Amino acid sequence: MDNRPIGVFDSGLGGLTAVRELRRMMPSEDIIYFGDTSRVPYGSRSRETILKYARQDTRFLRGFDLKAILIACGTVSTTSLDTLKAENDIPMLGVVEPTCRRAVAMTKNKRVGLIATAASVRSGAYERTIRAFDPTIEVISRACPLFVPLVENGRFRPGDVVIETVAREYLGSLRGTGIDTLILGCTHYPLLMEVIGGVMGPDVTLINAGEESAWEMKRALRASDALADPGRAGEAAFYASDRVEDFEKLAGMFLQEDLRRSVNQIDIETY
Amino acid sequence: MDNRPIGVFDSGLGGLTAVRELRRMMPSEDIIYFGDTSRVPYGSRSRETILKYARQDTRFLRGFDLKAILIACGTVSTTSLDTLKAENDIPMLGVVEPTCRRAVAMTKNKRVGLIATAASVRSGAYERTIRAFDPTIEVISRACPLFVPLVENGRFRPGDVVIETVAREYLGSLRGTGIDTLILGCTHYPLLMEVIGGVMGPDVTLINAGEESAWEMKRALRASDALADPGRAGEAAFYASDRVEDFEKLAGMFLQEDLRRSVNQIDIETY
Repeated sequence: MDNRPIGVFDSGLGGLTAVRELRRMMPSEDIIYFGDTSRVPYGSRSRETILKYARQDTRFLRGFDLKAILIACGTVSTTSLDTLKAENDIPMLGVVEPTCRRAVAMTKNKRVGLIATAASVRSGAYERTIRAFDPTIEVISRACPLFVPLVENGRFRPGDVVIETVAREYLGSLRGTGIDTLILGCTHYPLLMEVIGGVMGPDVTLINAGEESAWEMKRALRASDALADPGRAGEAAFYASDRVEDFEKLAGMFLQEDLRRSVNQIDIETY
Repeated sequence: MDNRPIGVFDSGLGGLTAVRELRRMMPSEDIIYFGDTSRVPYGSRSRETILKYARQDTRFLRGFDLKAILIACGTVSTTSLDTLKAENDIPMLGVVEPTCRRAVAMTKNKRVGLIATAASVRSGAYERTIRAFDPTIEVISRACPLFVPLVENGRFRPGDVVIETVAREYLGSLRGTGIDTLILGCTHYPLLMEVIGGVMGPDVTLINAGEESAWEMKRALRASDALADPGRAGEAAFYASDRVEDFEKLAGMFLQEDLRRSVNQIDIETY
């Protein structure tokens, strides 16, 4: 048993969809979340910039006595995970491997789609990971650069002509490829489940990276007997690197629960 | 006469619309442009973060022997200009004052609209500057947070349902206010001239911040006899803090001319 908190970080607010899943699956765990809102989005940055930011995010979180870290940022997971694992002596879990494992398990026709930020797609990490599990699977990728700003501006609901139009354009060319499984490779995208499902139709299984990585965290903690005392009620604390007003306003949308504690602002560039 | 270059910086690519105007009005001037593409957008950052970034941008540019700097970023101009002026011994021009002066000159009914990023609107700097010129003018502001990502994803053309829908929503409430002049308070927005003009109608005069600040630069240089030798052909050099491939791809859209020289990447956080 280990009552130390789980650290979670993301480039911004998207990782809160993983926090929601962690809290749903493991209500006894304490969670410390850092959203790097002063430097979001990571998706369009270079590999060097992303690694530098991820190291700073990790150093900030390691100021707490944590038992594990979930890197809820697809961009960091696809570009920097191996380096961060080598540099840290606690489990560092990304969103890519668990998501790919689930996609491999779900696909029947061995045609898997991937939507993510430009950097995640460019990295090729999802394809590499899936092919390491099963080299006969074909992965068809599409970058969706406008999904994050649209979600953060509240445009994720079915019926909104803006998100519907953008989603049809991004996903239209995926529809004709015969994929039966689609990875939502960015933690913002679970808010678009309904819109994406509407475009792709009921025959395509959507894989939510936040949910899969939360399952993976639970498995990892259970395997090392490091789950928290099931009798306790876990708490979540939130940190951001820019205006906490904006964070607080949007967090409820991602968490689908009210923030019980206020958000604290930190200067990430000093870490 | 002074053949030293003019420095221009912006949080990203938008400032290139000001470079286009500078080159159109003063083809003999050399220009050194820095776009802080690794940290764009500034618009949603806190004041402290914006000032810190602006100081680094200025320090990078001052590594060249410049005669003046144009701060082509509305967000920096509205939050940090006075501090930067006090800290530098060359002329530092922002985009806010020249734009407001033109709006004051153009409005007949003393009702002026402003569209800009959230931080620019929140700063209240446009209102304060306009009222300093004429306290009887009413300023009606609207933040347009999706305009920058939409423009950067190429969605600025009339007929695109996404930009048209977002523009109608952002501008719809401005239409009923009786403004006769609308300030485009962000250097990305000149690419939206046609879309915005289409929503606002022919009776509303659109003021382009890039163009007004380029005029102001020309006036300032002429007044101090610091224009370049009119017989020479000015050159423009471009620096960015992240992937130059993306910069090069989008720059032509903003400049409406081909980049003659390649773009150089620098690490702005070391400045």
